[in-house]
Amino acid sequence: MNTDRNRIFVYDTTLRDGAQGEGISFSAGGKEQLARRLDTFGVDYIEGGYAGSNSSDMAFFEPLRKKKLRHAKLVAFGSTRRARTPVQKDPQVASLLAAGTPVVTVYGKSWKLHVRDVLRTSLKENMAMIRETVAYLKDRGREVIFDAEHFFDGYRDDPDFAVRALAAAAEAGADTLVLCDTNGGSLPHEVFGAVRTAVDLFDRPIGIHTHNDMELGVANTLEAVRAGAVHVQGTMNGYGERCGNANLTSILPALVLKMERTCLRPGELKKLRDVSLFVDDLVNIRHWPKAPYVGRSAFAHKGGAHVNAVKKNPHTFEHTDPATVGNERHVLMSELSGGSSVLLKAVELGLARRETEEGARDILAALKAMESKGYAFEAADASFRILAQKVLKKHRSFFDLEGYRVIVEKRGKEEPCIAEATVKVSVNGEVEQTVAEGEGPVDALNGALRKALTRFYPSIAKVHLTDFRVRILDPEESTAAITRVLIESSDGEATWGTVGVSDNIIEASWEALVDSVEYKLFREEERKKPGRRAPSKRRGGQRRAKA
Amino acid sequence: MNTDRNRIFVYDTTLRDGAQGEGISFSAGGKEQLARRLDTFGVDYIEGGYAGSNSSDMAFFEPLRKKKLRHAKLVAFGSTRRARTPVQKDPQVASLLAAGTPVVTVYGKSWKLHVRDVLRTSLKENMAMIRETVAYLKDRGREVIFDAEHFFDGYRDDPDFAVRALAAAAEAGADTLVLCDTNGGSLPHEVFGAVRTAVDLFDRPIGIHTHNDMELGVANTLEAVRAGAVHVQGTMNGYGERCGNANLTSILPALVLKMERTCLRPGELKKLRDVSLFVDDLVNIRHWPKAPYVGRSAFAHKGGAHVNAVKKNPHTFEHTDPATVGNERHVLMSELSGGSSVLLKAVELGLARRETEEGARDILAALKAMESKGYAFEAADASFRILAQKVLKKHRSFFDLEGYRVIVEKRGKEEPCIAEATVKVSVNGEVEQTVAEGEGPVDALNGALRKALTRFYPSIAKVHLTDFRVRILDPEESTAAITRVLIESSDGEATWGTVGVSDNIIEASWEALVDSVEYKLFREEERKKPGRRAPSKRRGGQRRAKA
Repeated sequence: MNTDRNRIFVYDTTLRDGAQGEGISFSAGGKEQLARRLDTFGVDYIEGGYAGSNSSDMAFFEPLRKKKLRHAKLVAFGSTRRARTPVQKDPQVASLLAAGTPVVTVYGKSWKLHVRDVLRTSLKENMAMIRETVAYLKDRGREVIFDAEHFFDGYRDDPDFAVRALAAAAEAGADTLVLCDTNGGSLPHEVFGAVRTAVDLFDRPIGIHTHNDMELGVANTLEAVRAGAVHVQGTMNGYGERCGNANLTSILPALVLKMERTCLRPGELKKLRDVSLFVDDLVNIRHWPKAPYVGRSAFAHKGGAHVNAVKKNPHTFEHTDPATVGNERHVLMSELSGGSSVLLKAVELGLARRETEEGARDILAALKAMESKGYAFEAADASFRILAQKVLKKHRSFFDLEGYRVIVEKRGKEEPCIAEATVKVSVNGEVEQTVAEGEGPVDALNGALRKALTRFYPSIAKVHLTDFRVRILDPEESTAAITRVLIESSDGEATWGTVGVSDNIIEASWEALVDSVEYKLFREEERKKPGRRAPSKRRGGQRRAKA
Repeated sequence: MNTDRNRIFVYDTTLRDGAQGEGISFSAGGKEQLARRLDTFGVDYIEGGYAGSNSSDMAFFEPLRKKKLRHAKLVAFGSTRRARTPVQKDPQVASLLAAGTPVVTVYGKSWKLHVRDVLRTSLKENMAMIRETVAYLKDRGREVIFDAEHFFDGYRDDPDFAVRALAAAAEAGADTLVLCDTNGGSLPHEVFGAVRTAVDLFDRPIGIHTHNDMELGVANTLEAVRAGAVHVQGTMNGYGERCGNANLTSILPALVLKMERTCLRPGELKKLRDVSLFVDDLVNIRHWPKAPYVGRSAFAHKGGAHVNAVKKNPHTFEHTDPATVGNERHVLMSELSGGSSVLLKAVELGLARRETEEGARDILAALKAMESKGYAFEAADASFRILAQKVLKKHRSFFDLEGYRVIVEKRGKEEPCIAEATVKVSVNGEVEQTVAEGEGPVDALNGALRKALTRFYPSIAKVHLTDFRVRILDPEESTAAITRVLIESSDGEATWGTVGVSDNIIEASWEALVDSVEYKLFREEERKKPGRRAPSKRRGGQRRAKA
């Protein structure tokens, strides 16, 4: 099975253990999006959630059973059967099967304290729970991963008992035995020693699952791999309860770049920063600038001497080439991202050729000016394109704004809140004024704008918003802070993102709405031109050519 | 000198290497404040800054020479003499002496790459630079610490050369030899091995200085200590260039609680969280909630099963008693929470006693109903409290909303966007109507509400918003989707969070604003009652009683 002796199997639990983190929650659509992104990335196992514990996790498995993942195996997570309950009558074990995944992960106790104080059952019954649950699931054709919860605490307390819990799972046929530092309280050399023992004792893959409560989550995982573990569990960006799970975003590059292990699909490590940002965006949390490898500051140089030395030879102050993880060097007099990416982006969008670096430089200057105001174009390709067209003087505007007004009103505590928007635009000198109500001010504004433009541009009727995200920048300034609105639109064929920034959320939303409509109209016009193809938006062949 | 064989010397470089971090800068007064706080804490060495490189660092040493520190030794930092310059004529070495500190730290090269590509001098001259600078400073009565920059890279490249650099410093009389992982690219076992070699070769204290570029800063420091290092350099909260320096806030508790080493003044480890917050406050950066030991989430429990187990026995899911580092357990309200976490929370807030589980069950039912509408109470303690009070019929409302209206208007493409809000409330039958403009609709609404209430409740004037977050739930439904607004408010003493949910962002913000104001008024009223203490929000005695 594992022909490559250096192969490490990556097990992502962002959707399950990661979701235990403070402030982390995924929408149903977001879960599926993440699973597909991780699949492309080359993760081997994707733990989708608890089987049974709540219906939203169960619902997640459904679409992925229909439209399968390409590489990764989907995993349902649950515990061993309850004490004194026949395994075939345990509802939780039944839902592990009902999830219909090829792999199930079952956690069981390997620390006497937990058997006594939490399960409140006998040590013997604990072993039976492990053995019977694993055997039952194996009999039904599942790949079974056994998570020995609190393994290292248990091993410290009574090594023999902890090892016997592993043996119970192994004898019952568990495919992988995973040692968990559930409380995150173990030191690297302790992890190394215990993993080495398990590797020596058992004839099957040993896995590792650590937490970051002592800021040792990554170290403990890497030490486990050095001791012979070949299966690594963790979460993207280290999401997870308390101080988080072992951070795959730091572990994966260390395995590949520093320890010569094999994992992920070829070439995908270069997308590490993209994936990391994607996950943060999905749950709408702020990217951690100091994050190793992927953070904005990870390759930032402040001291003049360092910058100088790095210019002479990057190895002097960089342990890794930032490009290997999709990041870039960052010199701190400018707060902003570098220029080569802009050129690449402009090429990708069909706005520039490699030769015309000239235009790219102008775009970069405009981009930096926008970024300093709070704009972010990572998820707003369409706004970037419109900006670039304006710089290159290739932009024409399809309508002029004469004005808008939004009213939100509530007449009494129990009364509904009403939102109404009026919009006045002119197209080739012809003025159109419309009014619409909506669920909220932005919805009303969106309705009025589309109403006004559909008369002139009927295709606008097909455009609808598929995502709408708001981030407040400079939170210290609270409600008066700058608001960034990201909108994703679709016409049923293509999907595009736009951005707006203002200290007024309505104005920021308006900007993003206008960009969205203009992009649609522009694309349409371009498509009509004979002999020209609209540039492909995402995952184009062009991107591959550049990489 | 070192009679306690387990004694570790703590060397804080927050003011020097920490200040290299993105967004970190200290005022002159702030530097002195921090030095005195660290002195009380029991740090052994405080590196104040570069000698000579900039005048503000030099100015820092002045007041500390006059009003001495009680325990810590003050350190000036600089490099070896320049190549081909007599040491007594090197201006930088002269300013190391001029700083007037009892200790100087001198860094020198131990990696051939740097000698060749950065210094551009001979390997022999490099050794002379180290030897002569150390000897010169020793002759003038200083304690000299030698920082072997890039030691581990140098050791990997050519162990003999790296060790010879240490030997040059040792022969010249350096008191401590510090091995630096300047680029943060080393693995724990590499650090262990190289430190062990140095410990075996030299008859004086070996120190360690690591960076966090691989998320291994803490692990590498702890492994160095295990290998025999007795001098530990780091920064508070892991400030520092790129991904930061080794984080003393994680290292110190590990040394004391997990490795049985001695450091800090007795009893001071309990102030760890206070010191950590103090430092963040000083440079005005947001505390990292997931920070091990000291973060708000470090002992936060979300899953119902975990909360249940912690109630039975805290060791089950806590690797350390939060009180040992001045932190506390924290129960998160969430979709995953069961009844036990609600009870714990209600006890924590002083709303219920352990006995009255009955009330907790009603609160849980109300909580679940709210959560299914999109409310989240993890970061909204104050809204949870108001909800609980309503359920327990202990709530009284301080004002009635008669209505509000928000208008956002833009008269033309280049015109500014104007936001105006009117609010009508009544207090005990008396109606107040106010109007305010703001940067955006929520800011305007906030202004009008506070204006209206200040007449009746002057203390409202002190309340200000410290954070404002917006999340759109079900993003697939775009602008008509449900909006969740989280607000953090402060009156200068306490901080509290509130939440509002609606398909209209204005209404959601209004809800959160109202909860915030009601919570403030409620707390105030409670405080005035004779014989009753307001339930302490943070660091309460109650919390300790329950644990």
